[in-house]
Amino acid sequence: MEKVLVFGHKNPDTDSVCSAIAYAELKKELGMNAEPVRLGEVNGETRYVLDYFKMDVPRLVTNVTEETEKVILVDHNERQQSADDIHKAKILEVIDHHRIANFETADPLYYRAEPVGCTATIIKKIYKENNIPLKKEIAGLLLSAIISDSLLFKSPTCTDEDVQAAKELADIAGVDLENFGMAMLKAGANVSEKSGEEMISLDAKQFQIGDFRIEIAQINTVDPNDVLEKQGEIEKAMEEKIAEKELDLFLFVITDILNSTSVGLTLGKEQEVVEQAFNHPIENNRIPLKGVVSRKKQVVPVLTNLFEQKSR
Amino acid sequence: MEKVLVFGHKNPDTDSVCSAIAYAELKKELGMNAEPVRLGEVNGETRYVLDYFKMDVPRLVTNVTEETEKVILVDHNERQQSADDIHKAKILEVIDHHRIANFETADPLYYRAEPVGCTATIIKKIYKENNIPLKKEIAGLLLSAIISDSLLFKSPTCTDEDVQAAKELADIAGVDLENFGMAMLKAGANVSEKSGEEMISLDAKQFQIGDFRIEIAQINTVDPNDVLEKQGEIEKAMEEKIAEKELDLFLFVITDILNSTSVGLTLGKEQEVVEQAFNHPIENNRIPLKGVVSRKKQVVPVLTNLFEQKSR
Repeated sequence: MEKVLVFGHKNPDTDSVCSAIAYAELKKELGMNAEPVRLGEVNGETRYVLDYFKMDVPRLVTNVTEETEKVILVDHNERQQSADDIHKAKILEVIDHHRIANFETADPLYYRAEPVGCTATIIKKIYKENNIPLKKEIAGLLLSAIISDSLLFKSPTCTDEDVQAAKELADIAGVDLENFGMAMLKAGANVSEKSGEEMISLDAKQFQIGDFRIEIAQINTVDPNDVLEKQGEIEKAMEEKIAEKELDLFLFVITDILNSTSVGLTLGKEQEVVEQAFNHPIENNRIPLKGVVSRKKQVVPVLTNLFEQKSR
Repeated sequence: MEKVLVFGHKNPDTDSVCSAIAYAELKKELGMNAEPVRLGEVNGETRYVLDYFKMDVPRLVTNVTEETEKVILVDHNERQQSADDIHKAKILEVIDHHRIANFETADPLYYRAEPVGCTATIIKKIYKENNIPLKKEIAGLLLSAIISDSLLFKSPTCTDEDVQAAKELADIAGVDLENFGMAMLKAGANVSEKSGEEMISLDAKQFQIGDFRIEIAQINTVDPNDVLEKQGEIEKAMEEKIAEKELDLFLFVITDILNSTSVGLTLGKEQEVVEQAFNHPIENNRIPLKGVVSRKKQVVPVLTNLFEQKSR
């Protein structure tokens, strides 16, 4: 039986890695020759989670179609966030919770997107629909993904369904939700040993909106000043990405997980769109993003609207 | 509460009309102010079905955003098959069974596509997931949609899930599947009073593939000669569409529902791609399409591949 690779987006976060593992496991139970893989390095938070539940790190793959034609995408759909050779693959399924864009298939497929806070919440539901019991460690991974994406339920992307799913998963996994959640987030928010380049690459996503190419990176921290003290080094890394990928804008969102707010660092010739979007002047390339913790809900839509207007 | 319009594709077929009615009904039961509408004239088959189950014909709407911002799409996703002003609408949900293309949103949404033969099969499942009992007449509409899309289970798009759903729905609706199904298909296959323009417009879909714009129309008949005797009139109507919409290819698929096969009538400067696709010379603009009954599975993918190659 031909192998099917299951993977999340580039610069994988905890949802992309854990949902890939959990969904591949479900498909294996249903008789598919599925293997979870990843498109990039796992971050500190994800490593903490995999260690905690004693799970292997999925294999790194860059060109998926060198191994198989068939793939399943979790936690993303946009071409530029997927494998470089995704256009050559046959996409059997997509399980996601993002907007749909830059996505096209020649054939019908199973596509399941729901406007919830985390892919893992949907995967938990699909386990139930198929009457497959959740193993303890798989429940732990799905729980971790929800905590990560929702910043322990503080993100505006978090829905009642995510909270309810997390509670049930914590019971199955046998962990204390609050204690485990905070320990996990702090493990991911340790920026002390990271270079500027690492900080802006850890969780970066590229978007094509009309005529514009933008990249929005995000980092979680317990104190934004730990990041901002390396501003010079970070900006140098951002300049390099802008030149290399011909970006019109780079926005780096530094999120304070204790106070649920962010500060932005931005460069590129469309910098002024960020001022418009958040209605505040940029000073020293910085802009306060008060109450912003969700790239998907509080950053992407407002920038999408402005760049679409500019493209008309 | 703001109204939400629920609709299928332009040139609606039985699945597009009946799935819109059934899904709007489900959303109403769940507390949404949903109304089913249609983007074009209902065909003879659909009219037979609505009469049989004593249901009203949904209201015709052309510009959906004149009434509301919020919409739900059933049985389609591609922009050019949807309302003309779909780019201005906020798409809350999509329930579909086609490939995904020319579709983009600014925000996350509920998107449910499954590679089954009919949207109605998915909607039946969503009723169950929400524990909403199916009313007799709604079951009848969903059943009709499955019979229509699967040509009474003869189409290669038909899955076991469609057959199983149809059997359960026939029980709830209280009809004999075979007798009702054949009567319904024959009601739709009566072409005697149709003009050439009507025949090619009844179930026409436009596709943008790379640099090429193509239209594929389909008609069901109990005898293809009933259609082909009007070849001159039909070709005149096809020429007009090609000029009006600047099409590179028009393919009209005339399907023999009794023998589960088709003959194609084709015009346009990319005519030769049809020869390549079906490996048979075109004579007098006609090409045999042996065993073809499904546009989605047996026509669109092969033309998509060839036109994508030509666009590279």
